[in-house]
Amino acid sequence: MSAPSAESNERFEKGLERLREIDRGAGQRVLDGLKDIAPDLARYIIEFPFGDVYRRPGLTLKERMMVTVTALIALGNAQPQLKVHLHSALNVGCTRQEIIEIVIQMAVYAGFPAALNAIAVAKDVFAERDAEGLS
Amino acid sequence: MSAPSAESNERFEKGLERLREIDRGAGQRVLDGLKDIAPDLARYIIEFPFGDVYRRPGLTLKERMMVTVTALIALGNAQPQLKVHLHSALNVGCTRQEIIEIVIQMAVYAGFPAALNAIAVAKDVFAERDAEGLS
Amino acid sequence: MSAPSAESNERFEKGLERLREIDRGAGQRVLDGLKDIAPDLARYIIEFPFGDVYRRPGLTLKERMMVTVTALIALGNAQPQLKVHLHSALNVGCTRQEIIEIVIQMAVYAGFPAALNAIAVAKDVFAERDAEGLS
Amino acid sequence: MSAPSAESNERFEKGLERLREIDRGAGQRVLDGLKDIAPDLARYIIEFPFGDVYRRPGLTLKERMMVTVTALIALGNAQPQLKVHLHSALNVGCTRQEIIEIVIQMAVYAGFPAALNAIAVAKDVFAERDAEGLS
Amino acid sequence: MSAPSAESNERFEKGLERLREIDRGAGQRVLDGLKDIAPDLARYIIEFPFGDVYRRPGLTLKERMMVTVTALIALGNAQPQLKVHLHSALNVGCTRQEIIEIVIQMAVYAGFPAALNAIAVAKDVFAERDAEGLS
Amino acid sequence: MSAPSAESNERFEKGLERLREIDRGAGQRVLDGLKDIAPDLARYIIEFPFGDVYRRPGLTLKERMMVTVTALIALGNAQPQLKVHLHSALNVGCTRQEIIEIVIQMAVYAGFPAALNAIAVAKDVFAERDAEGLS
Repeated sequence: MSAPSAESNERFEKGLERLREIDRGAGQRVLDGLKDIAPDLARYIIEFPFGDVYRRPGLTLKERMMVTVTALIALGNAQPQLKVHLHSALNVGCTRQEIIEIVIQMAVYAGFPAALNAIAVAKDVFAERDAEGLS
Repeated sequence: MSAPSAESNERFEKGLERLREIDRGAGQRVLDGLKDIAPDLARYIIEFPFGDVYRRPGLTLKERMMVTVTALIALGNAQPQLKVHLHSALNVGCTRQEIIEIVIQMAVYAGFPAALNAIAVAKDVFAERDAEGLS
Repeated sequence: MSAPSAESNERFEKGLERLREIDRGAGQRVLDGLKDIAPDLARYIIEFPFGDVYRRPGLTLKERMMVTVTALIALGNAQPQLKVHLHSALNVGCTRQEIIEIVIQMAVYAGFPAALNAIAVAKDVFAERDAEGLS
Repeated sequence: MSAPSAESNERFEKGLERLREIDRGAGQRVLDGLKDIAPDLARYIIEFPFGDVYRRPGLTLKERMMVTVTALIALGNAQPQLKVHLHSALNVGCTRQEIIEIVIQMAVYAGFPAALNAIAVAKDVFAERDAEGLS
Repeated sequence: MSAPSAESNERFEKGLERLREIDRGAGQRVLDGLKDIAPDLARYIIEFPFGDVYRRPGLTLKERMMVTVTALIALGNAQPQLKVHLHSALNVGCTRQEIIEIVIQMAVYAGFPAALNAIAVAKDVFAERDAEGLS
Repeated sequence: MSAPSAESNERFEKGLERLREIDRGAGQRVLDGLKDIAPDLARYIIEFPFGDVYRRPGLTLKERMMVTVTALIALGNAQPQLKVHLHSALNVGCTRQEIIEIVIQMAVYAGFPAALNAIAVAKDVFAERDAEGLS
């Protein structure tokens, strides 16, 4: 990853810490995939979403993940990100049932196809976690 | 509004009750606006989103409103509904600061234009509530 | 409007004829609005959608308007076009009840906010037609 | 699937019947996939879209499928649902040529990429039906 | 606006400078509108899009504005931002004809409604600039 | 492909020439895929986007490809088209670094998931070009 400027060192370090707390490695794989092709984009992801936004008070981490999962379901074109963030949501304390409730709520607001596509991703995530003995 | 079939009476009654609990009249104006042109759509709104979905356990009412507000911000083409649901979210216990945090989170996932448009709606809603002495 | 090339004269003429058959003047106002700023875009609209596509066999004109209205409801960010095309749909034989049925169908696939926003446009269109004594 | 409440029994039974009439088993596979993870979502799909909406008069079943296919093309992020509903549309009397005409109409309103992605799905569906000797 | 942390001072200062270079005051009005309701969002806008992204080499400022205008047309739900950014694009050297060409290109990829809505915004912007004697 | 009408011969011929100049064969494969299922859609693609729009003055071909790539990233549901057009953009003189800059710009306007999905496609395209010794 390209060296962050001196001034952003703290945001970068704290963002990386926050990212690891949330995703237990999945985000790292995303960042590794960016290393050769777009290292600055990787750096911005750590600095802005994780270093700035995810460190804010005002919402619990669980609430941040719930609204993020919701947005990814509603946007409908972000299946790989939905997968990563469903894992993160479950990592920080969301229950599977809460995920399902969010999906059902989205059937009302984003339509049934968006809900069905989300369930398909959730199903994969739950199976991966079953295989690893995770909640 | 067209008479609901006998079998849906309970869903209709309970949905209407739920709607009133959430929106303190704003939803009623939406339904009244549908009375002449699409009474069955009004009935479905009461029966399915409010009679079925909003009465489910598994998320608190506050959480349901938070994810709904999130979806409306991310979808980006539902400003009138965002306005109504921001009021509802504040009615059931969300704070203004939580709303702002959701908007900032959406800058990351849906882009800054979606966040800025949401703030414009939130500003109107907060002003309306100030005028009425509401939180 | 910029002069169409010789080769497109027939598409242009037939497209204009088709447009007039469908919209009874509303489209003309759209084209007039483009005259000074983007005359070639106006010409393309007549030549491609109306000269090529709307003149195709395979769907009735009523069916073409039904699917077009559907798309504009589902896209959710095309309210001015939805208004013009609702008029066109009613001009070529759709009934108001069929429009309402399409909107209700869209509550399922595009979500309730998309349906509610479509009803608001339909309400305006129906009122304009009532004022002019149109079906 | 979770037992529907007594009051929704009729909507559930009639919805299931309607679904079978339309999709000849494809929808059943979707519902089976929901059984373990989100049985209530499966129930809602039968009760609301199929028990309530698809049983309405006002549009022919063929017209309902045509507008549904249109919406899924325009939304652009619902390829699995587009596949299922293209089969359903052909099951209830749409011709392949009508499907192609809808796609071409969508090139105008949702852009050429949406049309090209829809053709790719249609191609798969037509091949599957050729293999089974279906229209 | 809330005081930026020490480490982000440089990004904030340089971002503000960049913003002023591009928009000649229009962005400032947007930021002023955020001051009371979401000062941190205003700060992030200066720091991340303007302090980080718009200061990058690799694209000319004119090219950055061209692709930004394109995105806002394609997204279709960001009319207020499209207006501000059309002004900015013209401020940094885009010609009106180039804007129109981008809109026509979008008719192909995002559909004619997106193009027509963009023309309506461009028309307003061009008139405002005519009134001020700007290119 | 169905025979174009006499009047569109010139647009068809010039469009095909333009297409070949841009995509070096990739578009031809798309058109071949349409031959049996929707030959008229293939013809329209050659005539309207390539015969009309891509032949226009006012933007360089490189600029047209830059804004097209931008739109496909922002729309978010056009991955196969993004792949083809990234190749085309590089064919007509965009550098890989310019592509990456466009993606980073889109993180601001369309959100980080749209940017990350675009990088995944760019990565494939760059690898394919490395394998063929292309820039």
